[in-house]
Amino acid sequence: MPRDPSCVFCKIVAAEIPSSVVYEDQYVLSFIDIGPLADGHLLVIPRDHYTNLTDAPPEVVGRVGSVLPILSRACLSVTRAEGFNVLCNQGRVAGQAVGHVHFHIIPRKEGDGLGYRWNAGKYPPGRDAELAAAYQKAILGRP
Amino acid sequence: MPRDPSCVFCKIVAAEIPSSVVYEDQYVLSFIDIGPLADGHLLVIPRDHYTNLTDAPPEVVGRVGSVLPILSRACLSVTRAEGFNVLCNQGRVAGQAVGHVHFHIIPRKEGDGLGYRWNAGKYPPGRDAELAAAYQKAILGRP
Repeated sequence: MPRDPSCVFCKIVAAEIPSSVVYEDQYVLSFIDIGPLADGHLLVIPRDHYTNLTDAPPEVVGRVGSVLPILSRACLSVTRAEGFNVLCNQGRVAGQAVGHVHFHIIPRKEGDGLGYRWNAGKYPPGRDAELAAAYQKAILGRP
Repeated sequence: MPRDPSCVFCKIVAAEIPSSVVYEDQYVLSFIDIGPLADGHLLVIPRDHYTNLTDAPPEVVGRVGSVLPILSRACLSVTRAEGFNVLCNQGRVAGQAVGHVHFHIIPRKEGDGLGYRWNAGKYPPGRDAELAAAYQKAILGRP
């Protein structure tokens, strides 16, 4: 099982640092974020250490994904929030503060001042198709 | 296969509305968001229609989770971004605009003005343990 002895989330998995655990199974741990954006803010992590989502095996992120419904239902039930954001940040530029893959579940209520800064743009004609071709090439490794 | 004939993402899955597809398999479709927050912004959806993450079966969200690594690697490669945010919104209050479960992959670069509004708080003593107990009860259905 990949582990980084200097990683705070690995220490939480190993119970070397205490946390308020809300859910655990063989692959996934969920606990209360101690720096909450809202009351009841959860973290969901794979037990195994991967610094980045891009490093993690598909099945590891799949296991995390598969527990999001039950955890987000619990989030609405416990916090009586009207909705929530699920968020995973990779890279300092994106707000990643701990180098162990983690998903936030952030309960949302009207007027809470949270949320993603949403300034949607528009592509010039052809740019979306051009991007799709570049993505297909990157994903399939096709020339 | 659950489908909502009035859902724009179901129409994209059925190719009744064109989209710039970057990835597809039996369960998941990924395409270019036409209202991008950044060049190369992706959407990742289950082919099946579920309005909310809380309604979706674990295995459906698991399938979506399992493709996030390959899609996010492609995102960094195509956009040369330094990082990204993966985001799933549930509820109007949380910014959900289409009632079909979807995950955003938003490429991030220094000074892009994007990101989640991050005003972390702190719990009063005992509140995190109290929340964890409430979550455990909600998840396990224990009295």
